[in-house]
Amino acid sequence: MKFKIINEIFIEAINNVNRALSNKTPMPILKSVKIDLTNEGINLTASDSNITIKQFIPTFINDKQIIFVEEEGSSAIPGKLLQEVLRKANDEFVELTMIEDKLVHINFKNAVFTLNCLDVKEYPNINLISSNQPIIVDSKKLSEIIRQTVISIATSESRPILTGINFKVQDNILYCIATDSYRLSEKIFKFDNEITDINIVVPGKSLLELEKLIQSKPGEIKIHLSNNIISFEMDNLIFQSRLLDGTYPETSRLIPKEFGLTLGFNRHELIDIVDRVSLLSKEGATNIIKFDVYEDKTIISLESTEIGKVVEEVHPLSQEGSLLRIGFNAKYLLDALRILDDNIVKIMFTGEVRPFIVKTKDESITQLILPVRIE
Amino acid sequence: MKFKIINEIFIEAINNVNRALSNKTPMPILKSVKIDLTNEGINLTASDSNITIKQFIPTFINDKQIIFVEEEGSSAIPGKLLQEVLRKANDEFVELTMIEDKLVHINFKNAVFTLNCLDVKEYPNINLISSNQPIIVDSKKLSEIIRQTVISIATSESRPILTGINFKVQDNILYCIATDSYRLSEKIFKFDNEITDINIVVPGKSLLELEKLIQSKPGEIKIHLSNNIISFEMDNLIFQSRLLDGTYPETSRLIPKEFGLTLGFNRHELIDIVDRVSLLSKEGATNIIKFDVYEDKTIISLESTEIGKVVEEVHPLSQEGSLLRIGFNAKYLLDALRILDDNIVKIMFTGEVRPFIVKTKDESITQLILPVRIE
Repeated sequence: MKFKIINEIFIEAINNVNRALSNKTPMPILKSVKIDLTNEGINLTASDSNITIKQFIPTFINDKQIIFVEEEGSSAIPGKLLQEVLRKANDEFVELTMIEDKLVHINFKNAVFTLNCLDVKEYPNINLISSNQPIIVDSKKLSEIIRQTVISIATSESRPILTGINFKVQDNILYCIATDSYRLSEKIFKFDNEITDINIVVPGKSLLELEKLIQSKPGEIKIHLSNNIISFEMDNLIFQSRLLDGTYPETSRLIPKEFGLTLGFNRHELIDIVDRVSLLSKEGATNIIKFDVYEDKTIISLESTEIGKVVEEVHPLSQEGSLLRIGFNAKYLLDALRILDDNIVKIMFTGEVRPFIVKTKDESITQLILPVRIE
Repeated sequence: MKFKIINEIFIEAINNVNRALSNKTPMPILKSVKIDLTNEGINLTASDSNITIKQFIPTFINDKQIIFVEEEGSSAIPGKLLQEVLRKANDEFVELTMIEDKLVHINFKNAVFTLNCLDVKEYPNINLISSNQPIIVDSKKLSEIIRQTVISIATSESRPILTGINFKVQDNILYCIATDSYRLSEKIFKFDNEITDINIVVPGKSLLELEKLIQSKPGEIKIHLSNNIISFEMDNLIFQSRLLDGTYPETSRLIPKEFGLTLGFNRHELIDIVDRVSLLSKEGATNIIKFDVYEDKTIISLESTEIGKVVEEVHPLSQEGSLLRIGFNAKYLLDALRILDDNIVKIMFTGEVRPFIVKTKDESITQLILPVRIE
């Protein structure tokens, strides 16, 4: 294998696929990026066996020659190191030459790097799934769906299914749900076209990586599904993840429909207050914030026997319903407020020990938080 | 104790003194900032018992009232927490009220923080030293002296004296020396006035904190010395550190005066090369970079049996003397190159196993590096 390539384009592609690399893989070969070179272009593959990312770089882009192929072939090159070398290369082009499947020379300007490689034949065969009828979503919309729900996935592995996001399609409506059983995020998205019903759970970690990858890539994403794999296909780029096994808990009845009290706040102002009040929870054990709702004001407070306490008075923009005293994890509210987009936010309560929801005028997104019993 | 103060000015002073706070202090009271309030202003003190920083905020600055004193007094307030509360305070003024030496109220806008405090009577008595004939230096010059030598202090505690910088005044010349016994930095500074001879060792850690503190504060610094303490006095601000016990090794004969080979480089270009070549040392065990000096070029290389090797060719701007092959720790050269200021740098060798020096046209600063034997 021997080729020369415009370094800027090579780096971008390596940056993309390297998101799949993990330092903790039990298979050393999976620390490599697989390079398959033909006269048509380069296929790059990286995988940690849960996530696989594949990118194609065509030889020509808009009639401009990107790659100069001297000898077709395949290789497996240490991924992180290759990325660092390319980043520090002070030349427009870099040249890669494979020597007996064991060494790669990377040449540019006055430098030659010689990196030890593992045999590309050891690289596992990773099947890419495909289907005739992919689900099509806009990348910006998918990014929003992930961003607004992923905050509620479980970080502990005690119930593995809760570390994923549940994607359920029913009657052409997509319900995305994440919950760690203390809070829940639900995002609803209506398809314009006919979609087969599905009910799958995608690992939160995979979706976080996917979100970073698509953030800056506008366009259409084709979603393919198999038994245990989901694949997101963009221009020359494929992101594939294993699905989580198991049945996601039924959550639809958790979200209350009727409310005894609704408070309206300026979202940024409330973020500042909750953030400030949370100062006392950082070093202490407790993270329980209290809302005491009076006729003319709401008192937000947090107390830590060790450190002290903080009390802040706020005048809601709107208030409707009966008075209430409720306590809950300040971090949950902060997370929910931060991923919402509107200036105005509504907090809707049903009772002291009943879940409450945080909403904006965007009806598609619901954040639910379970309170804790306070004295 | 009760007062109101302009928050912006209070924060800046707290930021300054908090540099002395340590999380690892065996005395809980030393996690506090001591506040002494009189009608003239506030004295803030923070200390980890090695470093003490004291700042005075006057009640009036240029006829503008900064502090509104309601009741004089002293208190000890958790330092980090106070800093964070002030940073997040959304008001021009904050008001502090001490309740029975045990609690402090911090009020601003709609918020009241109540923090548990330790009794200020527990705060150790820290003597500030002073002298009639301080040494006077410019803060910018002192910052440069520290920055250019501190890279060579020892990080291991096996010879504690080497974790400091040696300040020696002889015949009105200040010699500042740091060495971890693998490399050495020497900075020379000539006083215009008569200075008593001194020979002290100041902890590197203290000087690093001092440097951060004075970076953005132009002006004159008065240096006071006692038996085991050094004090740096600025406008309303005092930084005091313990000295290290023991005798600093005599290093003056280590620096070679005659050279067999001198190479000139563009400093930035050489930084880029050494940085790039060092890529292979990051994950591997070795950090030994080699210079092979030929008539028409110099080959810079680094080899790691595990990872691979890198070879880069460079054409020195100037070359004088006999050819040479030498190996040394890449990091030492990189550190030395980075803290120098000029565009052109000279590396002056005396032999394969003899220390070599790195210099610019600024004669006051010398960086010395010990090579390692290579095959």
